Amino acid sequence: MVIVMKLSASSEEIAAVNEELKCCGLEGHLIQGVNRFVIGAVGERRDLVAQRLEVLPGVEKVVPIMRPFKLVSREAQEAPTLVRVGDAVIGGRDIVLAAGPCAVESKEQIYEAAVRVKQAGAKILRGGAYKPRTSPYSFQGLEEEGLKALAAAGEATGLATVTEVVDLPSLDVAKAYVDMLQIGARNMQNFRLLQAAGRSGKPILLKRGLSATIEEWLMAAEYIMSEGNNQIVLCERGIRTFETATRNTLDLSAVPVVKEMSHLPLLVDPSHATGVARWVGPMARAGIAAGADGLLIEVHPEPAKALSDGPQSLTPTAFSRLAEEMKKVAESVGRSL
Amino acid sequence: MVIVMKLSASSEEIAAVNEELKCCGLEGHLIQGVNRFVIGAVGERRDLVAQRLEVLPGVEKVVPIMRPFKLVSREAQEAPTLVRVGDAVIGGRDIVLAAGPCAVESKEQIYEAAVRVKQAGAKILRGGAYKPRTSPYSFQGLEEEGLKALAAAGEATGLATVTEVVDLPSLDVAKAYVDMLQIGARNMQNFRLLQAAGRSGKPILLKRGLSATIEEWLMAAEYIMSEGNNQIVLCERGIRTFETATRNTLDLSAVPVVKEMSHLPLLVDPSHATGVARWVGPMARAGIAAGADGLLIEVHPEPAKALSDGPQSLTPTAFSRLAEEMKKVAESVGRSL
Amino acid sequence: MVIVMKLSASSEEIAAVNEELKCCGLEGHLIQGVNRFVIGAVGERRDLVAQRLEVLPGVEKVVPIMRPFKLVSREAQEAPTLVRVGDAVIGGRDIVLAAGPCAVESKEQIYEAAVRVKQAGAKILRGGAYKPRTSPYSFQGLEEEGLKALAAAGEATGLATVTEVVDLPSLDVAKAYVDMLQIGARNMQNFRLLQAAGRSGKPILLKRGLSATIEEWLMAAEYIMSEGNNQIVLCERGIRTFETATRNTLDLSAVPVVKEMSHLPLLVDPSHATGVARWVGPMARAGIAAGADGLLIEVHPEPAKALSDGPQSLTPTAFSRLAEEMKKVAESVGRSL
Amino acid sequence: MVIVMKLSASSEEIAAVNEELKCCGLEGHLIQGVNRFVIGAVGERRDLVAQRLEVLPGVEKVVPIMRPFKLVSREAQEAPTLVRVGDAVIGGRDIVLAAGPCAVESKEQIYEAAVRVKQAGAKILRGGAYKPRTSPYSFQGLEEEGLKALAAAGEATGLATVTEVVDLPSLDVAKAYVDMLQIGARNMQNFRLLQAAGRSGKPILLKRGLSATIEEWLMAAEYIMSEGNNQIVLCERGIRTFETATRNTLDLSAVPVVKEMSHLPLLVDPSHATGVARWVGPMARAGIAAGADGLLIEVHPEPAKALSDGPQSLTPTAFSRLAEEMKKVAESVGRSL
Repeated sequence: MVIVMKLSASSEEIAAVNEELKCCGLEGHLIQGVNRFVIGAVGERRDLVAQRLEVLPGVEKVVPIMRPFKLVSREAQEAPTLVRVGDAVIGGRDIVLAAGPCAVESKEQIYEAAVRVKQAGAKILRGGAYKPRTSPYSFQGLEEEGLKALAAAGEATGLATVTEVVDLPSLDVAKAYVDMLQIGARNMQNFRLLQAAGRSGKPILLKRGLSATIEEWLMAAEYIMSEGNNQIVLCERGIRTFETATRNTLDLSAVPVVKEMSHLPLLVDPSHATGVARWVGPMARAGIAAGADGLLIEVHPEPAKALSDGPQSLTPTAFSRLAEEMKKVAESVGRSL
Repeated sequence: MVIVMKLSASSEEIAAVNEELKCCGLEGHLIQGVNRFVIGAVGERRDLVAQRLEVLPGVEKVVPIMRPFKLVSREAQEAPTLVRVGDAVIGGRDIVLAAGPCAVESKEQIYEAAVRVKQAGAKILRGGAYKPRTSPYSFQGLEEEGLKALAAAGEATGLATVTEVVDLPSLDVAKAYVDMLQIGARNMQNFRLLQAAGRSGKPILLKRGLSATIEEWLMAAEYIMSEGNNQIVLCERGIRTFETATRNTLDLSAVPVVKEMSHLPLLVDPSHATGVARWVGPMARAGIAAGADGLLIEVHPEPAKALSDGPQSLTPTAFSRLAEEMKKVAESVGRSL
Repeated sequence: MVIVMKLSASSEEIAAVNEELKCCGLEGHLIQGVNRFVIGAVGERRDLVAQRLEVLPGVEKVVPIMRPFKLVSREAQEAPTLVRVGDAVIGGRDIVLAAGPCAVESKEQIYEAAVRVKQAGAKILRGGAYKPRTSPYSFQGLEEEGLKALAAAGEATGLATVTEVVDLPSLDVAKAYVDMLQIGARNMQNFRLLQAAGRSGKPILLKRGLSATIEEWLMAAEYIMSEGNNQIVLCERGIRTFETATRNTLDLSAVPVVKEMSHLPLLVDPSHATGVARWVGPMARAGIAAGADGLLIEVHPEPAKALSDGPQSLTPTAFSRLAEEMKKVAESVGRSL
Repeated sequence: MVIVMKLSASSEEIAAVNEELKCCGLEGHLIQGVNRFVIGAVGERRDLVAQRLEVLPGVEKVVPIMRPFKLVSREAQEAPTLVRVGDAVIGGRDIVLAAGPCAVESKEQIYEAAVRVKQAGAKILRGGAYKPRTSPYSFQGLEEEGLKALAAAGEATGLATVTEVVDLPSLDVAKAYVDMLQIGARNMQNFRLLQAAGRSGKPILLKRGLSATIEEWLMAAEYIMSEGNNQIVLCERGIRTFETATRNTLDLSAVPVVKEMSHLPLLVDPSHATGVARWVGPMARAGIAAGADGLLIEVHPEPAKALSDGPQSLTPTAFSRLAEEMKKVAESVGRSL
């Protein structure tokens, strides 16, 4: 980091900064600028030290130089991480489609969805049993009963399964039923849940928070990985901005940025990002063209009957058509599906 | 809500919308516009119905008219809710100061902080024992040991106490030690935690999420209140915007807006909002002038030694000075301190 | 629009709203809701009327239902508008590449750029002569001398040319030299300039403002079109959000949304959006996959010597490679290049 | 600035960076970090050099350390700048109220407004003659006729006058009639207009752009000041965020931040920020408490008849009451009105 001293900083104040650096095991390099001193500090990035320096008299500001994450960074591991979920491998040449309804609503509904998305080429079946809903009066999910139906549909079709967990109890229950656990956008900085996910022994699908920077998102992955679990798939699902034409703003630039910063694979979720079924196709194509390793797409046998997120759900037929289109786009960027 | 039909909508499509409304217990009023039909639907706001209608053929969009919250709304209760925490009453004529360190670091530190903020006029002592930190490598709090120290400091000084809880286990432990439970910004949509807070029997301090609209924030309060707990204090602590000069952007307009929409009292936290100790004073004054019922302020006996958020912490001396200023501002807007 | 009355609204207040509507040539439909009245008003959208109603006693809020733009809307014209710039046609099956340096720096530089982007398949040469720069101390452009060099390079290579205009005088000068005029992001709501562009007789490239909603952007196009000029190409170039990893956040969802709302063609500018040359390729591919009609890309013969925006400029070699990739992506979505 | 080299940077690449720095008149200080080199560059901040370095092989990123503005910075001038507009002095102990209608609509309307705001204590009369409107179909202002009416009302009441200018022609006309020229939010980065304002010989009221950082806003002021005009008053009027309950989000933290960074005085405009008359009072009080030097407030004799921005306009009576409240708040923070 770099410590910028005030114009008026005295030599005693500069010495005090150097002293503090030494106490913390860092080394300070004094640089005399045109009209003030700056100090370059060498050592591991530690935010606490930066905070302490910032409070010292004579210090104008402290500028961090290095990124805060370690294990998840591309510098820590050059080769891409491959995440195995059932038969699917995420992060290789193959584009992986994960699809299914927002919420498991019944045995029949999830089974029907499973059969149809499998036919279309999906490898992973999604379905929510614990739904974080903005309103306490909305449908909150079938919980364990939903997990059972999801697992049964996965088994019957040979699809791997993924479901969202929202707290420690739901995580404990879910891991007995599904192949992959999802941490949703609203829980991206639920650090207890991240740590539990790190100890779960399951692959984790980590959605980006609505207002999370890419750096914070990777730090959330760092929480999981620091518990010994490197089977992490990131999922870009739109961020919150001033634009209201779409439900969220899908930040596809995050795809090349994450790929450069980290070795972890990445999916794109065009359903939550746009909130509108007819815009899912274009953004799915764009996500693959940008370099994503797969897609997470909401598909419901009857969107008009959905208990949650109907307007953004594709019909199975629309999903089949989308999967066909995806094949061509994937090939155009040197991938397969 | 209003259902806007497409230019090309057929009379069958219009009839189908009316049919669906009737099924859901709503009544449709057909209005023929200049060049299209719109349907005004009368009945309780139910988002699921809106979603289903949106999927019907011929429907262009569905525009909700009513606000989604019920119990927390000013229309449900005209009189302001008063929240009692120890000797303090939040929501009345008196401005309430809650102050203390970001994290409890030791018995001595929290006791020292308690004595000093009490002298300055604070009624509530804050101190974190479970810290949600962006990095897994940062100090995560003293947990139960910290709660004990906080409770002891509160008892010794006669201050009420408030601490953040981050999951169900920490909530269970904390409620035995403190007078008020805080739900932090990152957990504002941790709905399981909100429901548990609603059943805790304790007053709740509910911080606004970094990217939560006022409506979503009030819906989070609705989660708590729908479990039977109306002792809720909202806390504006800054939202995430493009501006980086301050840690967050303190949205003081939320004060009059919330006061109009809801009967719940509201604090302002200028420490997390600005992230810089020397800007806490001006924003604290502004918060009171805008109509807040109190302030939540970070005070640390030695900010340069703080294990968390030192740069935004006031010294006890600075806090005393601030409290003096507050008195005058409070009087200027017809309040007292 | 819908006028929502307060719970407490009297019948006199409702009558006054109806009276005001009648005065303004609108028709009011009274709807009795569960616990309040709402009035559906039929007639052309006029924001002034809405504002006046909002001030009347008893009115809680006024909710506009229809979109404010007319001429640019897809409802006004179903068929896509084709914009002709030199030999290029934007908005048809062919993807159009517009490329060149951020700023014209010398005759040699722009000529060299022109030759190279032409070889790679570009149809339009871009080059700035009037540069809106954040700092008054930065290079501000060669002005008319730059336009001459741009025109000469265009003529020598057979490329059409586009340049940014920043005020009425620069527009007047530029229109004698170039084939298309660009209105930049910072001037998207410089309404005088938009009107002058509408009367210029030239095709206009209208960039989206940094914080403009899609609706405001289309209203800016409406300003141009209401002066009789329908040769407008929109250009998505990234919006301002909290994310700082990229220079702006490229909002690719705007591509399908604009295509649905309007008949105007649309380019994507991945250079300004990302600010980093190595992320331009992925976002260019994504833009085409999302359905854009072309790309606007910064190419500089020697990025390290550029007087402006070097870090986001491609070398001619990198641009050739990108154009090859684009061909495949374009074909995968049924377009050609 | 600090140049961070890649992990893999060779010594030749490091040497090339040093060479480039030397060419640009800067001095490089090599610092060997834990696992990479960083180079501290000493010399004046020049963004072009930073951009060039960023393109060099082996360079990971360039981090600017110093702020880009010069003349407007508090370091360039410790004492606050006082701006004189008619009898009013902005930036001293006295809080200055500027008030009047959004748009001049008639001689009678502006005269009536002038008389009433003068009685209430305003020193400056505002009124728009050139209105930048989102829709081409909205009222665009009375232009020179409006300026005449504004000037006459100012003269009759002894109030100083301020009006918005939107391009060079309107600036030329307006400066003959009014005491102060306003650059609106949408033109904050209309650099030609800023330069013309700098040469106008008039005090300038510079509103913050909807998505402008504080740094960019001060750079806009730098444009004006670099033309020799230091009579600049900044005006915070809300930024664009995801929150839609208010028209914009009033960023009151900008008040102490600007006061620390710059010597220029600052007003707050609670009318445009909130968009709702009943929230103007609380935010006006908060603005003064935060340390603003005055307020810009929309007052219309009959808000329900206003041709623009009626819902956010105060009646003269409400403004008088507000001015009374302001006196008390001003005194509570050591100011007068």
